[in-house]
Amino acid sequence: MRLIENWFSERYSDNLQLSFRVKDQLLSIKTDYQRIDLFDTYDFGKLLSIDGTVQLTERDEYIYHEMITMLPYYFNTKPETALIIGGGDGGAAKRLLKLNFKNIVNAEIDRNVVEVSRKYFPEIASSFDDKRVKLIIGDGIKYIKNSNEKFDRIIIDSTDPVGPAEGLFSKEFYNDIKNHLTDGGIAVTQSGSPYYQEKALSLAYKGLSGVFSNVKTYLAFIPTYPSGLWSFTMASERAFKIRDENVINGTYFNKDILAGSFYLPEFVKKIII
Amino acid sequence: MRLIENWFSERYSDNLQLSFRVKDQLLSIKTDYQRIDLFDTYDFGKLLSIDGTVQLTERDEYIYHEMITMLPYYFNTKPETALIIGGGDGGAAKRLLKLNFKNIVNAEIDRNVVEVSRKYFPEIASSFDDKRVKLIIGDGIKYIKNSNEKFDRIIIDSTDPVGPAEGLFSKEFYNDIKNHLTDGGIAVTQSGSPYYQEKALSLAYKGLSGVFSNVKTYLAFIPTYPSGLWSFTMASERAFKIRDENVINGTYFNKDILAGSFYLPEFVKKIII
Repeated sequence: MRLIENWFSERYSDNLQLSFRVKDQLLSIKTDYQRIDLFDTYDFGKLLSIDGTVQLTERDEYIYHEMITMLPYYFNTKPETALIIGGGDGGAAKRLLKLNFKNIVNAEIDRNVVEVSRKYFPEIASSFDDKRVKLIIGDGIKYIKNSNEKFDRIIIDSTDPVGPAEGLFSKEFYNDIKNHLTDGGIAVTQSGSPYYQEKALSLAYKGLSGVFSNVKTYLAFIPTYPSGLWSFTMASERAFKIRDENVINGTYFNKDILAGSFYLPEFVKKIII
Repeated sequence: MRLIENWFSERYSDNLQLSFRVKDQLLSIKTDYQRIDLFDTYDFGKLLSIDGTVQLTERDEYIYHEMITMLPYYFNTKPETALIIGGGDGGAAKRLLKLNFKNIVNAEIDRNVVEVSRKYFPEIASSFDDKRVKLIIGDGIKYIKNSNEKFDRIIIDSTDPVGPAEGLFSKEFYNDIKNHLTDGGIAVTQSGSPYYQEKALSLAYKGLSGVFSNVKTYLAFIPTYPSGLWSFTMASERAFKIRDENVINGTYFNKDILAGSFYLPEFVKKIII
C-alpha cells in the first residue's frame, strides 16, 4: 500500500495537464536563466523539466534528438561540421557524433543544464567528453554575432519562445544563422507543438522564410511533449534534395520518416500559410 | 476565485494521466455494456468517455472521424455503401454522408451511446435522421453473421479490445467482414495507440493479415487519445490504389495526409512485423 503518491504535472493550458507519477524528485534549482527540475518517473525514467515543461526523458528522448539531427543530415551535401545552439543535455551532439560529424560546437547558455545532464544523464552528456565536440557556455546569439566560423548544419535546440529562448525565434538571429552556414548548409529549429503553440511554429516558419529561399516544416510524434505532436522547421539557401545514400534506422527515424514527416495535416498547413 | 476545481483524468497507465479541467459533469451512467460519462470541459468542449477512456470531444473529433472515413474512401472503386460497426455517436456516418454514400448501415451494440450522442452532440448524431442511414441497435458480430448484404466499406469504429469490443479484433470476425465486402471493397478498423496499446495494433494487423491479401496501417495525431498518436488499419482483397480524383480537404485530412499517413516510425514498424 502506498500512502503517498507524488505526481509531476505539466500544464498544457490552464485547463489541461499531463501528469507523471514520480518515484522521487532528485533536484530543483533556480539558475540565472530558468528553473530546472529532475524527477525519477515510473513510466519514462528520469525526466528533466525546465520552467515546468518537459525537456527530455530517458524513455523517449530518442525521438526529438533523432528528428532534429538525422533527418536534416540526409539532405544536400554530406555535412561534417555543426553548431548546436542550446542542447545543453548533449543529446543532439551525441547523435551528430554517431553520424560522424568531425567538428561540433555546442553553445549552451546555462551551465547548470550541462551539469545536471552530466550527473543524471551521463550516457547522453558523454558527448561533451568527445574531442570532436567543443562546449561553449554562453549566449548562442552573441556567439554567432562574434564568430566568423561557418557550419554545414546549425541546430537550434532551444526551449519555447519565452524567456531565454525568445531571441532564438527572431528574424535578426535567423539572418546571423544564414551568414554562418556553408554553401548548401541547413539550419533547423524545433518549432513547438502545432496544436498548443501555433505561435512558435508561425514565428519560426515566417521568420526563416523571410531570410531563407527554402523552408520546410516537418512533424514528429513525441508522447511527453504537449499534445504529442511536435514540429521542426529547416531552412537552406539551396533547394532541399535527399542524397542517394543508405539511410540508417534510428528507434523512431527511418527512410519512411525521412519522406513522410513533411506531409502536413490541413490545420498545420493553415498555421504556416 | 474558484474554490473548487473539477478535473477528469484518463489514466494511460498506472503512472501517467491526461487531465481535463471540467465546467460540469453532465452525465454518468452504467449500461449493460459499459460506463458512460459526459463532461463539459474548458479546452475541448463536451467530452464523451466510455469506461474512463476518451471517445470523442467536440473540439478534436474531426481527426478520428475524418481519418477512419475519408482516407479509405479515396482508394480503389468509388464506394457507395458502408457498414459501420460501433460508431454510436454518429460521427463516422456523418462523414460518409458528406462523401455521398447512398446506403449506410450502422450497428451499435449500446443504445445508450446513441441516446447520449443525440442529446449532447446533436449536430453529430443528426446523421441518424438521414434516410440513407439505417441504425441497428445490436451486436455487429451477430449482425454480420446473419446478413447476406455486401458493402463497399466496412468501418470498425470500436472501443479498445477489452470488454464489448474484444471480439472485434478476432480473426473469425475479420473473416466474416471479408465475406461481406463487395469486390475491391475495403475494411478499416481503429487499432489503438502504438505507444501505449501495442497489443491492439498487433491484434488488428496480424488478424487482418491472416485473412486479407492487402493490409496497411496508417497513423494520425489525436491530442485527446493516449500518447497523441493513433493507428488505423485497413484491409482489402484488392491491392490499394488511390483513385485519380480531386481530394476534398477536411480540417485534418488532405491530399498530403492521404499519402503521408502510411509512413511509419521504426518502433511502429516493429510492432507489425
